[in-house]
Order: sequence, then C-alpha cells, then structure tokens
Amino acid sequence: MSGASSRLRNVLGHLLSRGDAHQPHRHHLTPTIFLERAASIEPEAEAIYHVTANGKVLRRSYMEFADRARGFAYYLRKKGYKRVGLLAPNTPAFLESVFGISAAGAVLVPVNIRLKPEDINYIFEFAEVDSIIVDAEYAYLIDAFRKLYPQIPIIVDVDTDATEGALSGPFDDAVLEGLNHDRATGNHGWAGLQSQTSVNEEDMISIPFTSGTTSRPKGVVYTHRGAYLATLANVVESGLNLPSGRCKYLWTLPMFHAVGWTFPWAVCAVRGTHYCLRKIDYPLIWRLLKEEGITHFNAAPTVNTLLCAAKEAEPLPHPVRVTVAASPPTAHLFEQMTALNLHPVHVYGLTETYGPITRGYVLPQWDSLPPHEKFANMARQGHGFITSLPVRVIKTDQADENVLADVAKNGKEIGEIVFTGNICAKGYYKDEEATRKLFAGGALHSGDLAVWHPDGSIQIQDRAKDIIISGGENISSVALESMLVEHPDVLEAGVVAVPDSHWGERPKAYLTIKEGKTIAGQDVIDWAKHQSAISKFMVPREVEIVKELPKTSTGKIKKNVLREWAKKGIVGE
Amino acid sequence: MSGASSRLRNVLGHLLSRGDAHQPHRHHLTPTIFLERAASIEPEAEAIYHVTANGKVLRRSYMEFADRARGFAYYLRKKGYKRVGLLAPNTPAFLESVFGISAAGAVLVPVNIRLKPEDINYIFEFAEVDSIIVDAEYAYLIDAFRKLYPQIPIIVDVDTDATEGALSGPFDDAVLEGLNHDRATGNHGWAGLQSQTSVNEEDMISIPFTSGTTSRPKGVVYTHRGAYLATLANVVESGLNLPSGRCKYLWTLPMFHAVGWTFPWAVCAVRGTHYCLRKIDYPLIWRLLKEEGITHFNAAPTVNTLLCAAKEAEPLPHPVRVTVAASPPTAHLFEQMTALNLHPVHVYGLTETYGPITRGYVLPQWDSLPPHEKFANMARQGHGFITSLPVRVIKTDQADENVLADVAKNGKEIGEIVFTGNICAKGYYKDEEATRKLFAGGALHSGDLAVWHPDGSIQIQDRAKDIIISGGENISSVALESMLVEHPDVLEAGVVAVPDSHWGERPKAYLTIKEGKTIAGQDVIDWAKHQSAISKFMVPREVEIVKELPKTSTGKIKKNVLREWAKKGIVGE
Repeated sequence: MSGASSRLRNVLGHLLSRGDAHQPHRHHLTPTIFLERAASIEPEAEAIYHVTANGKVLRRSYMEFADRARGFAYYLRKKGYKRVGLLAPNTPAFLESVFGISAAGAVLVPVNIRLKPEDINYIFEFAEVDSIIVDAEYAYLIDAFRKLYPQIPIIVDVDTDATEGALSGPFDDAVLEGLNHDRATGNHGWAGLQSQTSVNEEDMISIPFTSGTTSRPKGVVYTHRGAYLATLANVVESGLNLPSGRCKYLWTLPMFHAVGWTFPWAVCAVRGTHYCLRKIDYPLIWRLLKEEGITHFNAAPTVNTLLCAAKEAEPLPHPVRVTVAASPPTAHLFEQMTALNLHPVHVYGLTETYGPITRGYVLPQWDSLPPHEKFANMARQGHGFITSLPVRVIKTDQADENVLADVAKNGKEIGEIVFTGNICAKGYYKDEEATRKLFAGGALHSGDLAVWHPDGSIQIQDRAKDIIISGGENISSVALESMLVEHPDVLEAGVVAVPDSHWGERPKAYLTIKEGKTIAGQDVIDWAKHQSAISKFMVPREVEIVKELPKTSTGKIKKNVLREWAKKGIVGE
Repeated sequence: MSGASSRLRNVLGHLLSRGDAHQPHRHHLTPTIFLERAASIEPEAEAIYHVTANGKVLRRSYMEFADRARGFAYYLRKKGYKRVGLLAPNTPAFLESVFGISAAGAVLVPVNIRLKPEDINYIFEFAEVDSIIVDAEYAYLIDAFRKLYPQIPIIVDVDTDATEGALSGPFDDAVLEGLNHDRATGNHGWAGLQSQTSVNEEDMISIPFTSGTTSRPKGVVYTHRGAYLATLANVVESGLNLPSGRCKYLWTLPMFHAVGWTFPWAVCAVRGTHYCLRKIDYPLIWRLLKEEGITHFNAAPTVNTLLCAAKEAEPLPHPVRVTVAASPPTAHLFEQMTALNLHPVHVYGLTETYGPITRGYVLPQWDSLPPHEKFANMARQGHGFITSLPVRVIKTDQADENVLADVAKNGKEIGEIVFTGNICAKGYYKDEEATRKLFAGGALHSGDLAVWHPDGSIQIQDRAKDIIISGGENISSVALESMLVEHPDVLEAGVVAVPDSHWGERPKAYLTIKEGKTIAGQDVIDWAKHQSAISKFMVPREVEIVKELPKTSTGKIKKNVLREWAKKGIVGE
C-alpha cells in the first residue's frame, strides 16, 4: 500500500471507529467489561481464593476485586503509564493488573518469571514499558534492569492479605491512591475509564512473549477483539458456564503464559472463583480439589502426569474438567485422569493464537469403542474452536511459501498446521519480517507438523524441528513418547533425534520412572519391540533413565536440552 | 452528516471492510459458518428430528442438513434471488433456508404464519422480496399476493420425508437443482458461497418483523455481527454446550419469531439436534421429553403453564433447561416447572434485540430462602447478557427525549428499560423516523416499564401501554396476574385497565381455570383481598372467568383484545 493511501486509511479508520462507538447497536469488543459486569451481577460472590506469600488464606469478593482493579486503573491514569510490565506468579495482583491496566487504556506486558534476567531485560526494553509491577519474591530478577533504567518506576506487590497498613506494599498503596484520586476528581467509577465505548476493538490489549527457546522471545500483539472472542470460545469449550453453581477455577496454568490463555477474562465472564497458586504444589492442589470443590483447571500433560502420580491422588467425588494443552497428551494419561474423575478437554494452540484454538471434540459414538481407542481419539488435536475459522494442514514442500496447498485427509500425509480468523494474534510486535513469515500465504503458521484424518480432525506429529527423519521415513517423537509411557513402570518420556551414520537420524529416548520402581533402558527397548502401536524400525535403540526431564514453565519438555545431553553424552543434570 | 462525508464514509467503509477480509487475523462475524462447521466435525450426528406433514419421522444428519442448505444456496445463486420471504411453521425446510439464504448472500424475511393475508402481503411488499418459500399448509395465505405479483416465484415446501420423487416438492427440487448446478460449474462446495471472508459483518442477514398488534408490523434489521454475538450469548446463557453429550433442542418457540431467538444458529454451533414441531401439541411434547431425552426448549410462560397443566405432565428423570421469555413469568410457574424437573432460565428481550438480551441470574445464596421467595427473585428480568452492554432503566418524565436519566435503584421507581450494544438490531427497515424514536438519546427503547432493584437487577412492571393508573398510583398488571395465578383453581390470568369515573382507571381481570374446577369471579376477588402480595386498592373489582385467553403466536396475552372485550362487555369469543 502506498504511503498516501495508508495515511488515508489510518485517518479514516480512526474516524470510522469513532463513528462506530456512537452507534447504539454496536459496541467495541473488549474482555475488560467482564469484571465490572460480574461485580454488578454478584458483588458478594467469591472472586478470589489465595494462599498469600505470608501464608494467609485470602478471599476476595467480586466487588472487592473490581474496586481494586478500578483503583489501580485510576492510579495508572493519574501517573500516565501506558505500557505496563508485569513479573509475577499467579497472584491476585496479577488478575487485578490484567483488568486495571486495560481499563486505564494501557497495554499489559506479562513476563515469564522463570526467564533469565537478560531475557527479562530484553523484553521490557523491547516492549518499551514505562512502568513495572513485580512480585516481591521475583524482584531480584530486575535488579540489573533497575540500574539501567532508574527512571522507570517499579511497583512491588508483597502478596499479603493486607490492603493497607504495615503488611501491605506499594501495589496496595497504588490501588488506594487510584481510588482516592477518582473520589477527589469526580467519582466517575468505571464510567471514567476506558471501556467498550471508548476503545477501538482492533487496539492492542497485551503483548505476551513467546518462550523463545531457540531465539529471542517475540512479542505477540493481542487485540481487544481477539481476546474477547478467544475468551468466549474458552467459556464455551471448557464449559465454564456450569448448569448450576459457579465455576471454581484453579490456576495451575501460569497467568503470564499467553495471558493465562484468556482465562483471567473467561472466569470473570461467568463470575467464577479464581483459585490462585504461587507455584505448582501437588499436595496443595489435591487439598483444593478435595476440600474446595474445584470444578476446572488447565494444565500441560506433564503437570497432569505428575498430578496423577502424586501420593494424594484418589478418585474425586465430583467431576472436574481439565483443559489440557501445551504439548500433545497421550491416550494413557487421559485414561488415568478419567479414572480419578478428572475429565480432559483437549485443546491445542500457541501464544500466537491466544492459547487454545482447537479442541479434540469427544464424539458420543466413541463410547462403544474399547477404552484405549477412545482415549487415543481424544488425544487428537481435533477441529477449530467455536469462534475460529477451520484449521488446516498444508504441504510443506511447496516451492512458493505463499502457496498453501492442503495435505490429503488420509491420516498419513504430514504437513504444517495453519490457522486464520479472529483467534489469531495480529502479529509480532515491532518485527515486520517475523510477522510476514508468520502469515506467509495468508495464514498463521504454527510450526507444528500434523496429519489430517479423514474425519477432518488434525493430529500433531511433532514440532517441525522435533520430527526424526530416519532412512527417509518420518518418525514422530510424539508417537514414540505416547507408546513409551504405556510401559507400566514409566512415568514420562522425551524422545529426540540423534545423528546416525547409516539412517541419517535415529530416535533416542529419555525416561523418568515411577516412584519405587527400578528398570533399565534395555528392559524398555525389549518391551517396545512387542508393541503394535509402532513399526519395528521406529523402536529406539537408546533409552536413558533420568531423574527428571527438563521442562519449560508451561510444562513442555525442552527438547533442545535433551539434544544437548545426547550430544555431550550426559544423562540428566 | 453531510452528503459528501456520508458518501466518503460509504466508499471508505467498503474499502476498509474489504481490506479487513484479507487480514488473516480477522474474519467477519457471521453465524452462517456454524452449520458447515458442525457438519465437518460430526457429519453423522443427528441434526434434525421431525414428524413430517405426511406423518413420518424424519431424521437428518448434519451432513445431510448442510448438503441441503448448500444446495438451496446454489439454487438461489443460480436464480439470482437476493431477498427471500419465508412463511412456514417449524420445519426442516425452515432451518435449511436460514442457512441456505445467508450462504447465498441473500436476506431472509421470515413471516408469522398466524398473520392475516393482508399483513403478509404488506410485509412481503414492504421488504421487497424477490422470491418466497412457503409451507404447503400455509400456501393459501399468499393466494392474493400471488395474483398481485405473479412474477415473484413461490417455492412450496411439502414437508415430507422424501427428498426426491413423487412425495417430494418444489423446495426439494430446488435443493437438488442447486447441488447439480454446483457440480456442473466446478464443485466449489461451501467455498463457493458467501462466508466469513466475503461477507461484511455489518451487512443485513435477516429482516424479521414485529408482531404489530397496534400498528403496521415493522421490519427489524439484523446484521451478521449482531446475530453472531447474540448466538454465542444464547449458547452460554442457556447452557447449550452440555458437559457431555449433545444438546437436544425442542422447537416449541416459533422459528419465524425473531429468527427463533437465534437458536437455529445456536443449536448448530454446539452440534445439537433440532426437534422440529409443526405446531404446539402437548401430548407430543411430553412424549418427546420422556422418550427422546430432550435437554432444552424455549417457551413463553403461557406455553409452560399449559404444559405443566397437561395430563401427561410428570416429573422427568433427567433435568431439562427451559429458557422462558416473551412475557413476565410468575414465581408460581417457576415453582411448578422445577417440580417437574423443568429448570427455568429466565430471559427477556424483544424482536429488536434478536430475542433474549437479559437473564435473571440465579444466585447461590437464594437456596437458603423460602422457595417462594427464591422463585420470585428468579422471575426478575435480571441483568444484560454476556455479550450485551449493561441494561438500564430510565426516567420517563424527562422533558427532552434525548436525555436518558437513570431511575433510582430502589425497586420502586418505575422507568423504561433501554439497551445498548451488539445485541441491539441496527434499526427498522426503511423507517428512519421509527428508527430515530427507537434509539432516541442513543439507546434502544424497549417500551417496557420496570423497576431497578438495589442489586442491579431489573424487574418488568408492564408494557408502557399496559400499566394501570388508578387514583394517580401505578398498578402493574404483571404483579396482579402473578398474584391471581396463586389461587389454587386459577390457570391463567390477564389484567387490563378499564375506565373508572372516580379513579381514572381500575384493573379488570380475565381468568381461565384449571380442568375440573368451577369457581366464580367473586370467589377470586374475596380470596385476593387477603393476599399480602398486593395493596388493598389494587384488588380488581371485576373478575371474569373465560374459556380461553387471546394470545399472540409467541404466547403473549393480547391485552388489546381484552380491552376490546371490556369495552364491549363481552366475555371471551
């Protein structure tokens, strides 16, 4: 587009959007509205349950939650902060910030608390934050940043049960300052903040960053409209709108990851209770499942695997819906979970798709299949979400990257998963080249390899870089991992390619084993040779037993670390 | 806006929207996509169950449903029809037309089958239809129209279980012709039709008409975006996304009314089964509830009252969610329904709001109230839907109609309910003056009078024209009706104002009584004097027992007919 027509478009786009805002039959889509709405419908409903950093149980109503978010928004308004960094575990302050920042018309930049200080520095610099909220426990991670940018204000959250007085901290002070500011300047409440009538739905609401295991983290541009439509989809797909009673949602998923897959908004949209967790603590999780009647949580397969293996595990009296994603789950895991009354909702997505965008829909006719077959079907990534356009699998061997040709729907041909539509992020922040690549040919490229089944469901085979090419044949590391965890003594499996002089590559497996079991790699190899799920040539010839597998904050196995181990010939760390 | 800037806006709006269509991160919102999506996820799932006009049970899968809708769309494309009238009861052809018409890029004009031929004439003329689909049973209603406009093609649906051959009819032929046309011209399938990438979400999708009891019916402009967001709200609010299994939705609500409150789209969005009904037939409804395991239906309070009173009524083994609207329900009705395992979801809306736009959310703390108090709370109209902006109640005595001032939230001050946001229709078709009035002051005026409770929920007192003003006091006909049906022998009640020389107006009640009961009007008056729910001065001094109350097709009591009866001194018809 030429500069002139681009300018014309900008000017008129602005005019048009302002015009839209004044049409009574149309409001801009933004999920920020859901908190104010929840507080107006059920002010006394429990919005937050949290065990604080000082070990107290904090319970906060929707009225309190909304008041605090609103106070923080006015604080940001007063100070003029427009781009707010956030470095915290799953705390009430995180949730209050999600709503407060967007209500102030500012943009949220959440950061993974497990990153190295250099990466955190890089993200805050690159995203041009003008203020930072940090949880006291993680404040040390930005020491270097503070020295470099002493002019950027840091708002520390101490995560106590106090809202004022000696036990409270700067975040609580900011909330109070904002509430007082509003009172002193006309008491406008929510009406004085950014809302569905003053925002443009195509504006940016947040810039979460990719984990960047192999390169610099990339900032992903989330819009109000995209976040809103992803939020509605998650309400429907995870069934947060229970037929009776309120959803009780347990925060096992990090909120900093893709803004918690939009669940800070989705849980508020149905006036559910957020059970915050500073860290993954299996005994605490089981206590909450049993005593508090948790109805929903989201977690990666690895977290579910360890949850099922915890000694506190026992079948729950009430069904819990567990939305599972982050890496491909195994049929074996789904079978174990179901036995504990933990019912998987299998979804799949990327930071670039606001988290989940496909779901493995469970078909009623599967009930007549042998259980293992049913769970294997459930482990497929399935179809596009209710508010998405259909997902596709495209050929990866096209000469022109702008030509998107579908693979055959035969369950065999492997291609790349691509997405289009409203649950796709707008692009990468300040990175036109990466954005162009992401959307090459007019669809969002996932980098994940999958087959397309005759029934239209997709099934991930591997990340493009994780697939093992042995003697010209593709071996799916995911398929091998799914097979290996079927062994009665194996807990987790991670498979990577290692160089092979004859075949080019061959698979190598790293396993953890269940508590109290002892088993050698060779035992698993011998057992694997008799498994029908895979072809003989796929059986790994090398299997190492390790104490622990390296994982990302979202529970994905770090394949790059396993490859390092294989290269250096080391076994674990 | 000046003509020049208006033209500029149109041109650039068009440019912008075409630009948007090519952005991979954004697709236009349209509910048409839900059928194609359902058929691709679960082609074999039962989409339609129907007892046909020739008395056969028809079951159609999602693949068949989608194929037929697609065929009809290609037929419309081939013929060039852009504005399609539809006069039919709740049949499979109706559902196929809803999707086929919008997939063809045409606009649906559904018409109430209970209207007089003159009104039907008027609607088809006014809406400028270029083709009409009519159910054979109702074809006589357009005899006059056919003579006036012989050039407008009529497509008759015979509603049999046949799709071709002697028992099929013109609608089936059109479907086949369309499918053949697509096959002959490249076999483009859904990709050759209008979709989320070629539609503009602000375009018109349908023009349903108001019932027009006191004036000419008015055409209400529904957009793709509005219909989509109302559809998602209905999925969430009515809980069509069951935790397991598919929803089985019974079509007691007429599809021609506000496009069935968007449920043709909503049920497809969750791949539910549509149980079509040519007419309200209580024994058949009870058989389907018991034998087919219906999970959801929508019906006006009057339909529910007669359903509960039917001799087939008995508590169901499984819970059914009943979305209730069209006129204010009574606490008494909700109590009766719940005892039968029919659980009310109480919603409220207008044709101008795509059907439902508020819901009486049930709060958990009500469980500790006496049952009657709980059901009385449930009978409130509540709060705006998940995809709506908040609903308001405004003062009706403002000198300037463009000033919208809220009433006090005290549960006493009566004002008018107004709406804003995406679940509001775009306006009245070809009626600028009515549209201006509808949106006076920037909000959609409902014409319904309500109080606003301290907890933020609204409760309808009356239609503006139905409230009774007696000695300067407002008497709510709704409150009187709610009280009267508490009498153990009373089935239904309709209350209107009659002139009174002393008080200006006074209430008069018309009642139907339960089968096998005999009771006089005076007995009810004596009983009413001892009811605490109303003040003494409100007790009607005239109560007439009638065989039947006059009702609209959606089950609203026709107050204008009752007023006629009162004026002429007649009792029933």
